[in-house]
Amino acid sequence: MIRFNNDYNCGAHPRVIEALAATNEESHPGYGLDEWCERGAQAIRDHAAAPHAAVHFVVGGTQANFLVIASALRPYQSVVSADTGHINVHETGAVEHAGHKVQALPSIDGKITAAQVEEVAHAFETSTVPEHVVQPKMVYVSYTTEFGTLYAKRELEELSAACRAHGLYLFVDGARMGYGLAAPESDVTLADIARLADAFTVGGTKCGALFGEAVVLANPALHEGFRSNMKQNGAMLAKGWLLGLQFATLFEPVGADAAVAGEAAVGAGAADGAVAEGETAGRPLVAAAARPSAGAEPLYLAIARRADEQALRIKAAFARADVPFFIESPTNQQFVVMPDDVLDDLAKKYAFEYEQRIDAAHSCVRFCTSWSTRPEDVDALVADIGALARAGRLA
Amino acid sequence: MIRFNNDYNCGAHPRVIEALAATNEESHPGYGLDEWCERGAQAIRDHAAAPHAAVHFVVGGTQANFLVIASALRPYQSVVSADTGHINVHETGAVEHAGHKVQALPSIDGKITAAQVEEVAHAFETSTVPEHVVQPKMVYVSYTTEFGTLYAKRELEELSAACRAHGLYLFVDGARMGYGLAAPESDVTLADIARLADAFTVGGTKCGALFGEAVVLANPALHEGFRSNMKQNGAMLAKGWLLGLQFATLFEPVGADAAVAGEAAVGAGAADGAVAEGETAGRPLVAAAARPSAGAEPLYLAIARRADEQALRIKAAFARADVPFFIESPTNQQFVVMPDDVLDDLAKKYAFEYEQRIDAAHSCVRFCTSWSTRPEDVDALVADIGALARAGRLA
Amino acid sequence: MIRFNNDYNCGAHPRVIEALAATNEESHPGYGLDEWCERGAQAIRDHAAAPHAAVHFVVGGTQANFLVIASALRPYQSVVSADTGHINVHETGAVEHAGHKVQALPSIDGKITAAQVEEVAHAFETSTVPEHVVQPKMVYVSYTTEFGTLYAKRELEELSAACRAHGLYLFVDGARMGYGLAAPESDVTLADIARLADAFTVGGTKCGALFGEAVVLANPALHEGFRSNMKQNGAMLAKGWLLGLQFATLFEPVGADAAVAGEAAVGAGAADGAVAEGETAGRPLVAAAARPSAGAEPLYLAIARRADEQALRIKAAFARADVPFFIESPTNQQFVVMPDDVLDDLAKKYAFEYEQRIDAAHSCVRFCTSWSTRPEDVDALVADIGALARAGRLA
Amino acid sequence: MIRFNNDYNCGAHPRVIEALAATNEESHPGYGLDEWCERGAQAIRDHAAAPHAAVHFVVGGTQANFLVIASALRPYQSVVSADTGHINVHETGAVEHAGHKVQALPSIDGKITAAQVEEVAHAFETSTVPEHVVQPKMVYVSYTTEFGTLYAKRELEELSAACRAHGLYLFVDGARMGYGLAAPESDVTLADIARLADAFTVGGTKCGALFGEAVVLANPALHEGFRSNMKQNGAMLAKGWLLGLQFATLFEPVGADAAVAGEAAVGAGAADGAVAEGETAGRPLVAAAARPSAGAEPLYLAIARRADEQALRIKAAFARADVPFFIESPTNQQFVVMPDDVLDDLAKKYAFEYEQRIDAAHSCVRFCTSWSTRPEDVDALVADIGALARAGRLA
Repeated sequence: MIRFNNDYNCGAHPRVIEALAATNEESHPGYGLDEWCERGAQAIRDHAAAPHAAVHFVVGGTQANFLVIASALRPYQSVVSADTGHINVHETGAVEHAGHKVQALPSIDGKITAAQVEEVAHAFETSTVPEHVVQPKMVYVSYTTEFGTLYAKRELEELSAACRAHGLYLFVDGARMGYGLAAPESDVTLADIARLADAFTVGGTKCGALFGEAVVLANPALHEGFRSNMKQNGAMLAKGWLLGLQFATLFEPVGADAAVAGEAAVGAGAADGAVAEGETAGRPLVAAAARPSAGAEPLYLAIARRADEQALRIKAAFARADVPFFIESPTNQQFVVMPDDVLDDLAKKYAFEYEQRIDAAHSCVRFCTSWSTRPEDVDALVADIGALARAGRLA
Repeated sequence: MIRFNNDYNCGAHPRVIEALAATNEESHPGYGLDEWCERGAQAIRDHAAAPHAAVHFVVGGTQANFLVIASALRPYQSVVSADTGHINVHETGAVEHAGHKVQALPSIDGKITAAQVEEVAHAFETSTVPEHVVQPKMVYVSYTTEFGTLYAKRELEELSAACRAHGLYLFVDGARMGYGLAAPESDVTLADIARLADAFTVGGTKCGALFGEAVVLANPALHEGFRSNMKQNGAMLAKGWLLGLQFATLFEPVGADAAVAGEAAVGAGAADGAVAEGETAGRPLVAAAARPSAGAEPLYLAIARRADEQALRIKAAFARADVPFFIESPTNQQFVVMPDDVLDDLAKKYAFEYEQRIDAAHSCVRFCTSWSTRPEDVDALVADIGALARAGRLA
Repeated sequence: MIRFNNDYNCGAHPRVIEALAATNEESHPGYGLDEWCERGAQAIRDHAAAPHAAVHFVVGGTQANFLVIASALRPYQSVVSADTGHINVHETGAVEHAGHKVQALPSIDGKITAAQVEEVAHAFETSTVPEHVVQPKMVYVSYTTEFGTLYAKRELEELSAACRAHGLYLFVDGARMGYGLAAPESDVTLADIARLADAFTVGGTKCGALFGEAVVLANPALHEGFRSNMKQNGAMLAKGWLLGLQFATLFEPVGADAAVAGEAAVGAGAADGAVAEGETAGRPLVAAAARPSAGAEPLYLAIARRADEQALRIKAAFARADVPFFIESPTNQQFVVMPDDVLDDLAKKYAFEYEQRIDAAHSCVRFCTSWSTRPEDVDALVADIGALARAGRLA
Repeated sequence: MIRFNNDYNCGAHPRVIEALAATNEESHPGYGLDEWCERGAQAIRDHAAAPHAAVHFVVGGTQANFLVIASALRPYQSVVSADTGHINVHETGAVEHAGHKVQALPSIDGKITAAQVEEVAHAFETSTVPEHVVQPKMVYVSYTTEFGTLYAKRELEELSAACRAHGLYLFVDGARMGYGLAAPESDVTLADIARLADAFTVGGTKCGALFGEAVVLANPALHEGFRSNMKQNGAMLAKGWLLGLQFATLFEPVGADAAVAGEAAVGAGAADGAVAEGETAGRPLVAAAARPSAGAEPLYLAIARRADEQALRIKAAFARADVPFFIESPTNQQFVVMPDDVLDDLAKKYAFEYEQRIDAAHSCVRFCTSWSTRPEDVDALVADIGALARAGRLA
């Protein structure tokens, strides 16, 4: 079974596992007050050009999201989100459980706009019964969104400006931050995020770590009491260094050497050059060396970049085969609409995620790459898509 | 100033005030464990033909709503509501504060359908990730809705059947139950509500009481611990008999005598017969005596009926003047769209509630009657609408 | 049955009922934004010499308590209370339901000391694991306490100083504020409370109102969002003026005329002079006129003063009979230990509250007076106690 | 620095790390629905002789505790705990944050008794105002307690009987379950716990795992919705197999071979036989082979047994030196009272945990062993204690 079903179906990047094993017998203070957490935090602060940000490490994304939201809001305040936002649809009502309404806005491609935020803020500010309605106080967006799409830097700047004009916090859920920042189409850096948002996360679980998310509180107004809230919500890991160590490892700069690339694709064997049928092959990793910033890139982005490249090879194959996209994604998740009988056949060889029924004979499915995706597995899928197209089964 | 702005802008029906004054020096057990509460509860059980229902009295509607919802749901369960539902838009997120997501559905005329409930239930039942989403466990509807509209008995039966088929509770918010049941268009009785819903409220605050809502738990599965939840949420009135006494008074059967009618219209002076311009005059109260059930009707319905009648006189006046309705309401709230300059003029004489801007020159406003509305005040409004129409100002 | 069981077993002082009846047909804005609420608030601000305090009116005491506490605290902060405090033992865990730990301290006579507060604050400040423990942020005391006892002004000054030295809020639950301030033994004024506390309540339910508590937020840091929290917790009365009107009535200054006194004792008939057996009779109300401040005293204190006086007559009778006190109370609640057979006999004529078993043959019970206690009923009890003593049944 | 400060200051037992590394490239379903979780759960069910128990894996102990408690209780119900219980003093009010009062009882050696539980239950059952007080519904105890002490099987049986007689759940916090079960003094097995308790945890974080706690719901009444509650509280690990794998590894039976023993003491070098001064040396691991059950013992117990043995060597050394114990512990935590100047000297070589000041010159400190404690480090401490005693510095 070749797995494209999600980006968290196997362990950690080898360097992370090595780091965990190598330090296993070291002794540390507990609860995140250790040197590794400080190193991981500093690496993120450096990379985000946010020297005064508070960085905390938690185990999971739902935990990170409701902690940031509940810690920032007073009881009568709400968080504004795309209706498709993870907090609105896939966290079992964790934000509401923490006491806050999620004000869900209609979204296009998983995104909301500054104009929508302005409208929500304006509606509250001009309400004749302000104490009878929740006060929008935070805007939640995801980078990448649940559909793999990206906000352009200009869009984030507009969202940030709208938030600041109306006294709302901007929170960027970065469970897939790596795949977003590393996408060829992205014009956003982590420093942009840190400059524009009040809080954001840097996801480890889906981006090379065994587990763990970094919570970055760029706005000092959000600092007070965060660790107490963590502990109270069971989000303070006793052996906190396990998290700091992973992020310190993932944010170490890597060169463009083949060894790293080889690692990133766990057990990779097939050469990229072997890809068939004229596809635009994944950008060879050596090419990265030519880019000025490549040498200083943290492992986190290097492995995400590879994952995006493999996803874009799959996307190109679907495009060549005229398979319709459910949504246009420039990152590691690809959503396509295919005939059910073809999906049945593909499912014998590949794992992918069923999304939803489209019509009596077609469904939307997701193919997802990750830091652990092997190029040769993508080769196989690309070849099979081509064969299906030639056989007229994708029409 | 003649007030049509809402249905809770003055005190209580005179009989309620009299009852409170007459019993002021009586001594009672506290916390709702008194004889008046038992009498009020029994009157409601009798009228609802629900001998096994638990009836509790609380002070306000928001309190009643979140208590019923939070008491019935486990933490990961949600309540389904029209997007326009009171719990979704006018209770400052009280349900979310109590930990539960409100799943808001698109609505027409403030109403949702059994088909929508089926769809929500089906989506959960067929979810591939049921533990990642909230479980819909209760459906919330209002009778009347926020727009004064009514569910037909058939619609409630379908909603109830859908809920029971999928294991959901049906909860009917009856803050304006009186105005709903008493409306000429209504084909629903309180016994229908008790038969079809698992829980409902019978609103006093807007329907003749000084304050207070009766919570009726028709489904025994909802009984356990309700009083503890009341106390914990500050909803157990120390002098609970004040609530029981009011409901006992409001649910006393009244005859169709003029004296009651005279009371109902506080300080009423003008005769209904004096209405001008060929309008369909409010049904004279004496006529009620001819109807078989009239003699046994509780005061609660008698006074609501009068309020509905006055509202329908206003509605008829607007219809004759070709004023467009924002929504068609058969009860005590009438929503119309009028030119802003006309509204400015009307506002010098009448209080009404501004709802929203429609276009550059028009707005939606609400005219609301209640048990305390005086027919002669309606006469005046009807006359003024006619005059404005004749002057061509409503075009 | 003569009732000494509690201080909320009948309606309202006649002036309150009159005010409600007289204004019943007036029309008001809803939700506490009316003129009566403003007048009631201003009367309290004036009496408390706290011109900048925010005053809100809610229906009940449990509601008032958890609202003040939850509105002031962040999630990881706690409130410190006597172990016997109402929030710790008689509110069904409302504070914990709102998310906060009640740190209960051992108490003497229902009171805690500044030294205890210092100790709790110091323990937190010097904790080596501050994020693993709750942060004490508010101190809750009651005036009077659940046992009817009083803090001396010096004790409150010390508590206040301890709180301010350590950044804690001081909150005074004044459900029985009237009985406290009016007690002969009290050296505290409402202005003292307002000066020393950050928040306090002025109880109406037990002190002459039909229902209602005033929440006074003396510290501006507690003002923001309070009305939103009220609405979210179902504590914003639709017809808010009902509360404002009652407090405006209760805080109107009264002279020392007999008419007021006559009212205060609902249906009072027996002259105080008729008391038997050399007891120290209740101080005659006319005497109050001699005191400089008496003329300006609000009705609230005038009627509480009478209740305290009646309680002290009962206390004196028990003292003369050598009945042991469970606790020494200078206010309207008297706790005594009596033989069970005597209690059985007394229960045929008087209602009183059973507190707890003391030994195989004795129990602690409470005799409670209120603004509605009639002197002739106290006469009867005083006489019966004397008779029991003479019969040797209280030994 | 030789570390006796706590039992979670280094990584995982080597076998756990090996398992994580060996399976790193395997692909698994997410969220605990994988084969490793099923294997880990089954191993625990087998070992606990609880074939119908539900077993869930979460990351941390605070998380496990509030999840079990909040999932079992309705809003107005409380959990009863020793005042020294972890949930009462070291979890930042997590249980209260989840809405429930912790009813703290005075404790001896960190333990409460069945008689105390009976008393709490009786007080509620006979309350005249049951809706004004929280309903005790669960009893929380720890095995081992925070002080390392143990409930005897008879004590647990009595607690369990008291709980069942009054309809309360019994919950055993097993953060240090291994050290408890493996203690020579213990007469309790995991099967006893499963038989007597409704829910318990089996701690991994302090007992050989990298992180993780198993939640065992022995009572089927507690099963429903637990996974939804986990997800809603951020306690469902995306890569759930990481937890299942660790527990599957820890609950694999091990023989009594030296290799295992060698592993257990990470990097252990010194022979146990080298201990000085006539102390009762740690029971050699080979001896374990002679005991009937030894061959089938899971790794979890084998390594805990070693830790207890090392702690008991330290205890014996203190006893020989006449150092007073703060509390008598038969497990891996030892609490002693020592002169401050001696502690200052010891702190240069050893890490231990400061507990509290005893008097001007003495403090209580904790020496803690774990699965990772090396016998030669204990040798050193034992020798140093002996030397201090001989120098008269411990008097």
